[in-house]
Amino acid sequence: MNMNIKAIAFDAYGTLFDVHSVIEKCEELYPNKGEEISHLWRDKQLEYTWLRSLMGKYRNFWGITEDALIYSLKHLELDWNDDIITSLLNEYLHLQAHAEIPEALEALKDKVKLAILSNGSPNMLHDMVRNANMDDVFTEVISVDEVKMFKPYMGVYQLGSEKLNLPKDKMLFVSSNPFDIAGAKVYGYQVCWINRFNLQAEEFNDLDSKPDVIIQSLVDLVKII
Amino acid sequence: MNMNIKAIAFDAYGTLFDVHSVIEKCEELYPNKGEEISHLWRDKQLEYTWLRSLMGKYRNFWGITEDALIYSLKHLELDWNDDIITSLLNEYLHLQAHAEIPEALEALKDKVKLAILSNGSPNMLHDMVRNANMDDVFTEVISVDEVKMFKPYMGVYQLGSEKLNLPKDKMLFVSSNPFDIAGAKVYGYQVCWINRFNLQAEEFNDLDSKPDVIIQSLVDLVKII
Repeated sequence: MNMNIKAIAFDAYGTLFDVHSVIEKCEELYPNKGEEISHLWRDKQLEYTWLRSLMGKYRNFWGITEDALIYSLKHLELDWNDDIITSLLNEYLHLQAHAEIPEALEALKDKVKLAILSNGSPNMLHDMVRNANMDDVFTEVISVDEVKMFKPYMGVYQLGSEKLNLPKDKMLFVSSNPFDIAGAKVYGYQVCWINRFNLQAEEFNDLDSKPDVIIQSLVDLVKII
Repeated sequence: MNMNIKAIAFDAYGTLFDVHSVIEKCEELYPNKGEEISHLWRDKQLEYTWLRSLMGKYRNFWGITEDALIYSLKHLELDWNDDIITSLLNEYLHLQAHAEIPEALEALKDKVKLAILSNGSPNMLHDMVRNANMDDVFTEVISVDEVKMFKPYMGVYQLGSEKLNLPKDKMLFVSSNPFDIAGAKVYGYQVCWINRFNLQAEEFNDLDSKPDVIIQSLVDLVKII
């Protein structure tokens, strides 16, 4: 990795925040189904970001998260009503940061500018950051909502370097999501993969899509920045 | 459904041809793993068509099918080599038509023009159609390769009405894949879903994305065209 980094842009969902924080509320409403709901919900949420972008029919991440939840509950043949949907969706405004994140961000923000670059809608990101007491951590919280397309559309990554007014190779993009790593690297960021759960890299072997550095916890990045 | 149909455009993979025909060869090479390989391979193949399209990094369907296969074998921690990859990929040129397809196509082709509109590369589609003895069935075999994007990009569906020189609402698009049904309907085709395996429709509730007719076998369409 080239160490001449002026800013770090973080993916939010899965990287800073644990999307599976929703399991607890799912379990409360649907005992023994929490994990299954949460994983299907997340998979379908991402799939819908891709399908919507390709169809040219953007709906913001809140709407997509709702569609994906309804799909998942139907798929698992679980009863649901509007109150349940509202209650589960609201969990998305209170996702927990992964354990090492608060301390690692505090250490990093003294060294370089920090930003979020996320699929989330502006309202969702605002509430989630505020609820996690991270208001003073990020210089910019950037939502794909400005370009009405989702990752890994190149225009999304471009938004990050534009907003921070920095050349893309002077920025480090950090994500836990393999497809996001590939997209950001293809765009031209320097890229760091937080691979907490020993996931598998994507196979785009004709492209330069591999991360510059792979870590298991954001704490590891503090040591090398 | 408006019955004033001048042509039918068929999706190929999963609709006319059974993508899980590959299970037999997978089983031969990896006993007791055939079904798992086949399903992961197919899921990842579709995912890569979406991710590649969004990144603006088109690779043809043969290359994507290879990438998805390698991903799947790595994921399942199976040993592989180039011969195995070649042997499994070649199965994609010999996919079996679903049982009712040959007879139903023969009946339909006397009534309206028939075409294929598929993610497949031109070579793949050509070989698969020839190997299934369907050379004289289709007026046009249309590949997304001309637009270098995959379904459900609207330009792909547009290619169908352009090639057949017909208004989109005078064409019926037939698919078994829920995301493809949604895409074709959003584009403006009349749409028929062959739902052989009781799959679940996509949740795009703000869009007009539901099929005009749902059948379980293509034979059912012969009766209503």
